[in-house]
Amino acid sequence: MTEEKHNNNSVGIVEAQTVQIPLPDEGLKLRKGGVLHELTVLYETYGVLSPDRDNVVYVCHALTGDAHVAGRNDPSDAKPGWWEEMIGPCKGIDTDYYFVVCANILGGCTGTTGPSSINPETGKQYGSSFPEITVADVVRVQKLLLEQLGIERLAVVIGGSFGGMQVIQWGIQYQDLVDRCICIAAGASLSAQALAFDVVARDAIVSDPNWADGDYYNNDAGPEWGLSHARKIGHITYLSPESLQEKFGRETKGGVDADGQCFQVESYLKYQAEKFIERFDANSYLCITQAMGSFDLIKEFGSLAAAFENVRAKFLIIGLSSDWLFPPEQSTELAAALLRSGKHVSCCTLKAPYGHDAFLIDIQNLSETVKAFLPWVGSDKVSVTNEPGALGKTKFRMIVDAVQPKSRILDLGCGEGDLLSLLLTAKQTVGFGVDIDLNNVIRTIDKGHDVFRGDLDEGLSIIADDSYDYAILSSTLQEVRNPKSVLGEMVRVAREGIIVFPNFGNWRNRVTLGFKGRMPKSDALPHEWYETPNIHLATKADIVDLFDKADLDVLDMVCLPGNNVLDRLFVSLKRCNLGAEYIFTRVASRKSGVGVQNTCRSE
Amino acid sequence: MTEEKHNNNSVGIVEAQTVQIPLPDEGLKLRKGGVLHELTVLYETYGVLSPDRDNVVYVCHALTGDAHVAGRNDPSDAKPGWWEEMIGPCKGIDTDYYFVVCANILGGCTGTTGPSSINPETGKQYGSSFPEITVADVVRVQKLLLEQLGIERLAVVIGGSFGGMQVIQWGIQYQDLVDRCICIAAGASLSAQALAFDVVARDAIVSDPNWADGDYYNNDAGPEWGLSHARKIGHITYLSPESLQEKFGRETKGGVDADGQCFQVESYLKYQAEKFIERFDANSYLCITQAMGSFDLIKEFGSLAAAFENVRAKFLIIGLSSDWLFPPEQSTELAAALLRSGKHVSCCTLKAPYGHDAFLIDIQNLSETVKAFLPWVGSDKVSVTNEPGALGKTKFRMIVDAVQPKSRILDLGCGEGDLLSLLLTAKQTVGFGVDIDLNNVIRTIDKGHDVFRGDLDEGLSIIADDSYDYAILSSTLQEVRNPKSVLGEMVRVAREGIIVFPNFGNWRNRVTLGFKGRMPKSDALPHEWYETPNIHLATKADIVDLFDKADLDVLDMVCLPGNNVLDRLFVSLKRCNLGAEYIFTRVASRKSGVGVQNTCRSE
Repeated sequence: MTEEKHNNNSVGIVEAQTVQIPLPDEGLKLRKGGVLHELTVLYETYGVLSPDRDNVVYVCHALTGDAHVAGRNDPSDAKPGWWEEMIGPCKGIDTDYYFVVCANILGGCTGTTGPSSINPETGKQYGSSFPEITVADVVRVQKLLLEQLGIERLAVVIGGSFGGMQVIQWGIQYQDLVDRCICIAAGASLSAQALAFDVVARDAIVSDPNWADGDYYNNDAGPEWGLSHARKIGHITYLSPESLQEKFGRETKGGVDADGQCFQVESYLKYQAEKFIERFDANSYLCITQAMGSFDLIKEFGSLAAAFENVRAKFLIIGLSSDWLFPPEQSTELAAALLRSGKHVSCCTLKAPYGHDAFLIDIQNLSETVKAFLPWVGSDKVSVTNEPGALGKTKFRMIVDAVQPKSRILDLGCGEGDLLSLLLTAKQTVGFGVDIDLNNVIRTIDKGHDVFRGDLDEGLSIIADDSYDYAILSSTLQEVRNPKSVLGEMVRVAREGIIVFPNFGNWRNRVTLGFKGRMPKSDALPHEWYETPNIHLATKADIVDLFDKADLDVLDMVCLPGNNVLDRLFVSLKRCNLGAEYIFTRVASRKSGVGVQNTCRSE
Repeated sequence: MTEEKHNNNSVGIVEAQTVQIPLPDEGLKLRKGGVLHELTVLYETYGVLSPDRDNVVYVCHALTGDAHVAGRNDPSDAKPGWWEEMIGPCKGIDTDYYFVVCANILGGCTGTTGPSSINPETGKQYGSSFPEITVADVVRVQKLLLEQLGIERLAVVIGGSFGGMQVIQWGIQYQDLVDRCICIAAGASLSAQALAFDVVARDAIVSDPNWADGDYYNNDAGPEWGLSHARKIGHITYLSPESLQEKFGRETKGGVDADGQCFQVESYLKYQAEKFIERFDANSYLCITQAMGSFDLIKEFGSLAAAFENVRAKFLIIGLSSDWLFPPEQSTELAAALLRSGKHVSCCTLKAPYGHDAFLIDIQNLSETVKAFLPWVGSDKVSVTNEPGALGKTKFRMIVDAVQPKSRILDLGCGEGDLLSLLLTAKQTVGFGVDIDLNNVIRTIDKGHDVFRGDLDEGLSIIADDSYDYAILSSTLQEVRNPKSVLGEMVRVAREGIIVFPNFGNWRNRVTLGFKGRMPKSDALPHEWYETPNIHLATKADIVDLFDKADLDVLDMVCLPGNNVLDRLFVSLKRCNLGAEYIFTRVASRKSGVGVQNTCRSE
């Protein structure tokens, strides 16, 4: 039964491998000046390497992770690897298709060379003499391992937290060798708050009476108190306040305080810390957190734009809503910089109540998003939008017709990415979509497009001026809270805006209000008044007036009549505001001086 | 020049006083069983006690605060007291009107009896033998001090953070002696996260090699490392991540790491900790944080409702938006419990980017809110709403007429509280308002009403079922995102809903859309379509239809024509949907079986 369970969608029993990496005579020179003369790497693999060796997914582990990502090393193991939920047959990273590699990182203490390893030059543990390492060194060792395995390129590199930093470094350092980068719950550097917690935690280790300047391996005791204290602080930061509250609240249990009680959160932290010091080395903790603390793309490259200049991989950047160690804004910052550097990038903040650690424990949406982004297996998410009707097809066709081949486009409110697909096929456009709905975002990623999950009313500040040829608002403007500022943003970031808007001036709407005294519903505005997402209704005349107030020139305006005789009649009589069900417009900033062509034509 | 500056809106030079509190022979029995045989309290006062002794504001200080709240003890002091911005002539607590008292708390180390005081029984410092204290003990000592000063009642008790907990305790423990309680950035207990940080910080103190079980006063060194470590952890939690990022980011300065650099945030924490250990005692830190950690109204009373059962004071509860030590939700929880217990309470979350400490440093809005709530000096905030026109007056009058005397009312979207004032005067109602705008909230508080700052679309979950006779939505329903659920909430919490709604079916709107092809503007709907807050337009017929769908019975419906002949004509012809500018309605849940009176009458 247990055996069955293990086999069920699991990679099953796996064996860790150790490899000695051959080094040149002068050793492995590290970024900060240190040198290593011996390099051992412990790793695990899952799945089967394809004959073309093009299905490799490299997993970068977090601060205190290890190479044991999935499956069990022994059938009797109580727990599987740390990302069992993500990796295995039919999972987010499907081992029926992909060959997964993960190694303990340089500086670690679970099989790869680190401070607790024997220094071949002294025959003793490195301890305080272990050289300072950087994320660049960590990633370089991963590359050396892959060379040993005969792997030249990565289909995907993925990691969360400190693993996410390694993913970014992969994209920068080996830009020709990696196709896709998935960076989860990380950032371009630690925030001031995260740094503050780290310096306080490290201070506890080096202030421990048993610290012995790091050379404690042959002493009776090491800095266990300091390491456990550091782990406690770290652990608080890995969980959201809500999840701590939900898990422990203010419950007490038999323990240590004056009433013979201690808070459950206290005994939980104690338990976590005790487990941790059994498996982790204080020097490794210092070494890796220092590498994490010194990772700073802006400091190293001058700017994120400079850091990402030569990136070629396609990026997926994922933030977690309740993560306060790497808040989702840091993910957005990374994604915005990649975008502004003209790279392929999708970005999505997932609703995740469990804080930073959610990428390990709350992974249903994460799996789906990863699956959609990976090349060979599609997302399981099904479409929820209907096939567009005749008018919908006309709208799409007009937008496609209006777009020059090979132009750069931005689809604001992109839905499931169908318009992006049409434009790509018909006009070989590049560009990306923005949508607020996760399902839409996943479906759009699955179709191969770049997409940002975001709220148009919160602005397009991630996008530089004049980055696109066209920004498209297809039946979206009436849904935003501030149409005027969205229009302004549109022509700031794009040369032209293409807007399709339901015309509240259509004669049927007028009749419904005028004679029936009711708020109209129609194909274009199908919702009840009290639950409609269309919160800013306007007629063709209103829109034209707003364009003027927003300093927009109208380059083209086309009335799209609904499917009835009167609509077509009014439009043929040039009474667009009466006959149009939708208005199609192309606009540009008046400052651009493209000129006005304010007359309305019909299709 | 310095002298002048000090005098400028400052209480100037102040002197701390020390008083020996006379104790009965058996000593002062503490809640947890301990006894004190000597009690000294150090305090300061500002302003002048009125002849009636009715202008006393008692200030409760936070964890590491002291009695020195405002002014300078010596002209050469570099800094004034810790709440100088709040207390002084013309300030939030105006010392031209109020007599302010603050004392160092029991267990402290700046003049009031605490672990570092001499135990009269041994002639040595208490140290580890200092008894465990509670917030109840702290407040009791404050009461004993006031007795010594001949003060019988408090006009106001105010405090932030741990001071806020003392305020709540005052309201509960001495319910007959305090008129107004202002509780800022506090909660009914510490959250699990805050507890976790506290247990880790305390562990650092008692793990310090110089801890000596708390009896370190006569040793060469005390647990300075542990105390400074605790302070560093605490300090991180007092600031918002944004303010740490803004202040320090990832800047480095000459210091201690491998590159001879340390992060500025590290040296800042070090500096704060060094300053702190000069003025604070480790035993006091343990003693007070333990009192704070054990404060738990739900555990003590069984429920917040039980805790607040006998409260008589009027409460003002203030949360700070970026406070993550006492998140604003904890303030809302307190306020909601007071409200549900039928107490007078106002509640407001202030936008404050600086985290928990914002109540000390970012106090402009806080001062205004406090000033409005205090009895004798009004807020400086001026009204921004216009006098209501004829129709506005009619609306108000109809609402007033519809309300039974002495009924309980809830004004959803209460603006500056004018309707609440009218209802109070004309009908002696009780109840409170809800508004999203801070200026409105402050103006409403200033008029003496209870008000919650909140977003109607986030629901009225703080309010128990059937708590009110009437819930009023005066020109508000069309502004909410989900009118149907707001209506549902309305009749859940109140017996009757009174709704005044702009009628989009008015003939002028129909004409504007129907013949001009434009979105109408009118007295009732004065905004441009693209910037209107009125995001759900509806006609009288639509509203009636929604009432039906929301299972509401219409008890009364009145058409309010605009100021023109045709409006009045249509209304007189019973064509309300054409003639009404506003619709006035009274509704009740169909389940209540009050009955239907769906015909429309005119005024």
